[in-house]
Amino acid sequence: VGKPVYTSDRMYELTPPGVSMGLAWTANGGSVLFIESRFTNPIDAFDVSSSDEKADKTSGASGSLILTGKLGDVMKESCTIALTYAKSFLQQLDPKNRSLRVGHIHVHVPEGATPKDGPSAGCTIVTALLSLGLNKPIRQDVAMTGEVSLTGRVLPVGGIKEKVIAAKRANVHTVILPYENQKDYNDLQDFIKDGLIVHFAKTYADVYKIIFDDQ
Amino acid sequence: VGKPVYTSDRMYELTPPGVSMGLAWTANGGSVLFIESRFTNPIDAFDVSSSDEKADKTSGASGSLILTGKLGDVMKESCTIALTYAKSFLQQLDPKNRSLRVGHIHVHVPEGATPKDGPSAGCTIVTALLSLGLNKPIRQDVAMTGEVSLTGRVLPVGGIKEKVIAAKRANVHTVILPYENQKDYNDLQDFIKDGLIVHFAKTYADVYKIIFDDQ
Amino acid sequence: VGKPVYTSDRMYELTPPGVSMGLAWTANGGSVLFIESRFTNPIDAFDVSSSDEKADKTSGASGSLILTGKLGDVMKESCTIALTYAKSFLQQLDPKNRSLRVGHIHVHVPEGATPKDGPSAGCTIVTALLSLGLNKPIRQDVAMTGEVSLTGRVLPVGGIKEKVIAAKRANVHTVILPYENQKDYNDLQDFIKDGLIVHFAKTYADVYKIIFDDQ
Repeated sequence: VGKPVYTSDRMYELTPPGVSMGLAWTANGGSVLFIESRFTNPIDAFDVSSSDEKADKTSGASGSLILTGKLGDVMKESCTIALTYAKSFLQQLDPKNRSLRVGHIHVHVPEGATPKDGPSAGCTIVTALLSLGLNKPIRQDVAMTGEVSLTGRVLPVGGIKEKVIAAKRANVHTVILPYENQKDYNDLQDFIKDGLIVHFAKTYADVYKIIFDDQ
Repeated sequence: VGKPVYTSDRMYELTPPGVSMGLAWTANGGSVLFIESRFTNPIDAFDVSSSDEKADKTSGASGSLILTGKLGDVMKESCTIALTYAKSFLQQLDPKNRSLRVGHIHVHVPEGATPKDGPSAGCTIVTALLSLGLNKPIRQDVAMTGEVSLTGRVLPVGGIKEKVIAAKRANVHTVILPYENQKDYNDLQDFIKDGLIVHFAKTYADVYKIIFDDQ
Repeated sequence: VGKPVYTSDRMYELTPPGVSMGLAWTANGGSVLFIESRFTNPIDAFDVSSSDEKADKTSGASGSLILTGKLGDVMKESCTIALTYAKSFLQQLDPKNRSLRVGHIHVHVPEGATPKDGPSAGCTIVTALLSLGLNKPIRQDVAMTGEVSLTGRVLPVGGIKEKVIAAKRANVHTVILPYENQKDYNDLQDFIKDGLIVHFAKTYADVYKIIFDDQ
């Protein structure tokens, strides 16, 4: 059973709405990882002018969450945390957009045969879900890593060196890291940091500004 | 796989509504731990003047509870106990506030990859839930530990020394301990107790007075 | 990892409605054990004059049961049996009191980290539930042990000697034992039986008379 090899540098050159790019740390070093999300019901999620009553009838009063991609328990919990946070973030941003609240959501992390675990994709999953809920692609060529707490705090993660190298290898030149990992980044050798734009995030709101507002 | 180290003393300097600060006892000694809680549905929970009928329609007749943070079985049960108790406590306090009864609640304990278990976060979880239900931050710089029973009795816990040291290390100078642990605290050396204000609680009502009423 | 030790003889000096006192038999000998029960919804359970329709609307058509306290499978089944029996007993006693039938009930057995199992808390659980449903504290300073069948037969249990000693140690001087354990009690040495009032119960109705009617 040979491992599939990508001919291009990465799986997506352009990510559609609902997809975000993260950085993972595996036994074999760092790698770029994509989070894919989709609604499983065709709600009029993006018709923000629709009355609450109509949306409720179409989709049921509350949504659901399906997870695939051979995710471990901690990563499954990360998806649950990301959804709760993304719902409240979207509620603040646009109270009329009920898509994440009423939508039935499927989150998948390719490749399906590779086991994945850990909390460090938190920011990436929140980003995918907001992109889905807003029906808006994220800023291209930005990869990120960082655990996210239920209130949107960005917590430090491991493998900064491997992840940064993976980003460069995939031709990604803007990276978002947790604020608490600033020292780990600063300790890297200059030739690794060369040509890279790095943002450090304390809360998810910092990530959002870079990913969605700067467009 | 190095463990991330916080450069600041603790994750939250100021806790928002729904978040409380506890003291945990791990294999590596004591540590400060935060309980985060959020509603996953945007109910008009704090519109205490809303009629029951309206709130019921918005959110369904009864709430639900999602738990994340790699919690063991005993800690999951602690969350269930804390919710039942917090509901009845809030009902006594303000019968019109239906938030905890009808809200869909998510409780998370960062960091997501660290397994946590045991009953000693009971008081801390009740506090987070009441802060959420009242939409009111808790008194800052107070950490607590204590099992809580279904009727709000505060039961003694282990690791008092380690927990008190962890509080001081995190610059927390007010600590709430179970009344039954008074002797354990008194046995500590003076240099540990120096500069610390300690309250001993027999029931959760004692904790509430310190956390919410003294503001 | 030291086990917390109670400075007082027992967790409750006075038990509120919904709480009863049992006798348990553990690897370390006998001990006093409390069963705590609470409604998780604020039904007008005690407004026995409320019409069925109103109560149904407030609380949903049928109740539910949540169990916590690290209970084993047999003890969980004991709770289920106790609830079925307590419902029918209360129905006989006061057909208008629908509290146990429509209430969402939470039964907890402190302390939360101690595993508990076995059927011998049956009578104690029925008593806690009737106390909850009647909103009436049980007679103080009475502890009991005994398996209960679905029709209210009280079945014999083990550890009579250890349980009786535990009751005396906790300053409890009235004990209810299964009728079938009379011989085990009679075999105890006189200094153990001294100062103790013992009732032997064949059915739960015998227990009820002592716990609720004699007040």
